[in-house]
Amino acid sequence: MESTNKSIAIVLLSGGMDSAVCAALAAEHGYELAALHLNYGQRTQSKELECFSQLCTDLNINRKLVVDVGYLSQIGGSSLTDFEMEILPSTLGTGEIPNTYVPFRNANILAIAVSWAEVIDASAIYIGAMEQDSSGYPDCRASFFAAFQATVNLGTKTGSNIRIITPIIDMKKSDIVIHGLRHGIDFSHTWSCYKSSDIACGKCESCQLRLRGFKEAGVSDTLSYM
Amino acid sequence: MESTNKSIAIVLLSGGMDSAVCAALAAEHGYELAALHLNYGQRTQSKELECFSQLCTDLNINRKLVVDVGYLSQIGGSSLTDFEMEILPSTLGTGEIPNTYVPFRNANILAIAVSWAEVIDASAIYIGAMEQDSSGYPDCRASFFAAFQATVNLGTKTGSNIRIITPIIDMKKSDIVIHGLRHGIDFSHTWSCYKSSDIACGKCESCQLRLRGFKEAGVSDTLSYM
Repeated sequence: MESTNKSIAIVLLSGGMDSAVCAALAAEHGYELAALHLNYGQRTQSKELECFSQLCTDLNINRKLVVDVGYLSQIGGSSLTDFEMEILPSTLGTGEIPNTYVPFRNANILAIAVSWAEVIDASAIYIGAMEQDSSGYPDCRASFFAAFQATVNLGTKTGSNIRIITPIIDMKKSDIVIHGLRHGIDFSHTWSCYKSSDIACGKCESCQLRLRGFKEAGVSDTLSYM
Repeated sequence: MESTNKSIAIVLLSGGMDSAVCAALAAEHGYELAALHLNYGQRTQSKELECFSQLCTDLNINRKLVVDVGYLSQIGGSSLTDFEMEILPSTLGTGEIPNTYVPFRNANILAIAVSWAEVIDASAIYIGAMEQDSSGYPDCRASFFAAFQATVNLGTKTGSNIRIITPIIDMKKSDIVIHGLRHGIDFSHTWSCYKSSDIACGKCESCQLRLRGFKEAGVSDTLSYM
């Protein structure tokens, strides 16, 4: 492992475009990156893991941790992990929480990241959540992350000083596209589709959000769609 | 599954005496119990799982979830999960956090419980943490649980109303013994030793806390010790 004097930031790298841009921003902020990826039994697990590996190469990240949180599919309650539930068409703009919501997922993810941060002395955790231009999941709100930060401050060893950083929380998907291109992110190495690990469906809410972002940014998506 | 009109409480049931008493208190409070147990690659995993099963039978709990959080041993940093670290003798009374501390473990456990609670519509989560008569782990403090409660309120779906309940937070180990006996807990079905899955060592901090509790309660422990 290359040793530097830089502070370490753990970046949650799902393989999606948001987390890729979030990681690029952490690097720009001067951190040495450590990448955390979770397999949680979601439909597109293999594709997301492949994108994670490609992005780590692209971003020159050597310290990686891939963990299995299959219990999220044991628990179920989401069409992403319960294959008997249908992924319904996008409900964007209706104010409904779609059935792709994995209950309290970001708390699970962040708890793992904080445990790792305590062990490797990381001082920051970057998570690419977006509040405005998203599906309305309750654990993607800035107020949730602020409350989680208070929990971290109280629940870790004195002196840990681990900060949860949400650099894209107020961005729109089109901002993600623009920031990504500025940082040289190869978006063909990112995956958004909820349904397929092969060719993106273009219809699920995640594909719709992605395509709208590219359209608003005036840029073509380099991914193929059905 | 037996259907009742009772509210559901998830009880975190490690197989130790604290969580056993905590579960008995949840039943006394009128809840239907659902038991959650975690295998996290700790040294005494098999014994704890055995005690979990026995306690579920004793307490008449039918709804159970056992999840594998092996990532806590992947992450390491604790002598409970990193077998190359030695479990040092008790540091009780020194103010030191012992090396058995599993970083941010209770946040990981609670996040899983909250995810499950959202899916099964549980209204409470009982966790048998103790602040005073404990090893000083930062994620066992009442202030930590209050902060986590705020995180739950903000990070779950509106209407979930999941309460984190810590009924033994201010108890001493001797209180646990007394409450347990009052509720008919068979303490030979509980396990505390950090080191062994066979005969309890009697020397590790967890054995020491247990033995001190029985002594202060003026009761004999029914477990055998080396």
